[in-house]
Amino acid sequence: MRVNLLYDFYGNLLTAKQRECLELYYQDDLSLAEIADNSEISRQGVHDLIKRAVKSLEKAEQKLGLVARFMAQEKYFQRLKEILSQREITEEDRREALAIVEKLLE
Amino acid sequence: MRVNLLYDFYGNLLTAKQRECLELYYQDDLSLAEIADNSEISRQGVHDLIKRAVKSLEKAEQKLGLVARFMAQEKYFQRLKEILSQREITEEDRREALAIVEKLLE
Repeated sequence: MRVNLLYDFYGNLLTAKQRECLELYYQDDLSLAEIADNSEISRQGVHDLIKRAVKSLEKAEQKLGLVARFMAQEKYFQRLKEILSQREITEEDRREALAIVEKLLE
Repeated sequence: MRVNLLYDFYGNLLTAKQRECLELYYQDDLSLAEIADNSEISRQGVHDLIKRAVKSLEKAEQKLGLVARFMAQEKYFQRLKEILSQREITEEDRREALAIVEKLLE
């Protein structure tokens, strides 16, 4: 779950081989042995490659913090959606929504 | 301008030395010679360091596209702000604002 989110944001920082293995492992649910069978690498090699790739993703998050920001923003977006889904928007809700947009614009 | 935006997003990917030189050059408007005088590097060294740092920022943008996404989103945020700044929000505007929030949530 977390790896998939990290991958969405930082996958492009990885090599093509790393991306391929992560997708097979985390999205397609293949086992290490299955991935090894379909590539030129040993099971242990696949294991190490995936471990290193996840470490790279975590390092990118440490530096850029996009996942943390995304998760913080998502709450605001959900609240905006809630307010704007009401047929009649109260003055209080309108002000709250405006404050959220201004915060997101920062 | 563009470098400052790239720096805001990807500055943390650079080394401390690169960050320092970029800030002195692009934010504090010091000349290459002035930066060289205050550090252990030659004027040419500062020039090369800055050039490499900007290249790293552009490469990060090529891979992650955060600046492009930010600029696209900003228009939407401005429109949301416009709509929510009106005392009376029409049904049409409410629907437009909701559609924007849903788009941003994707």
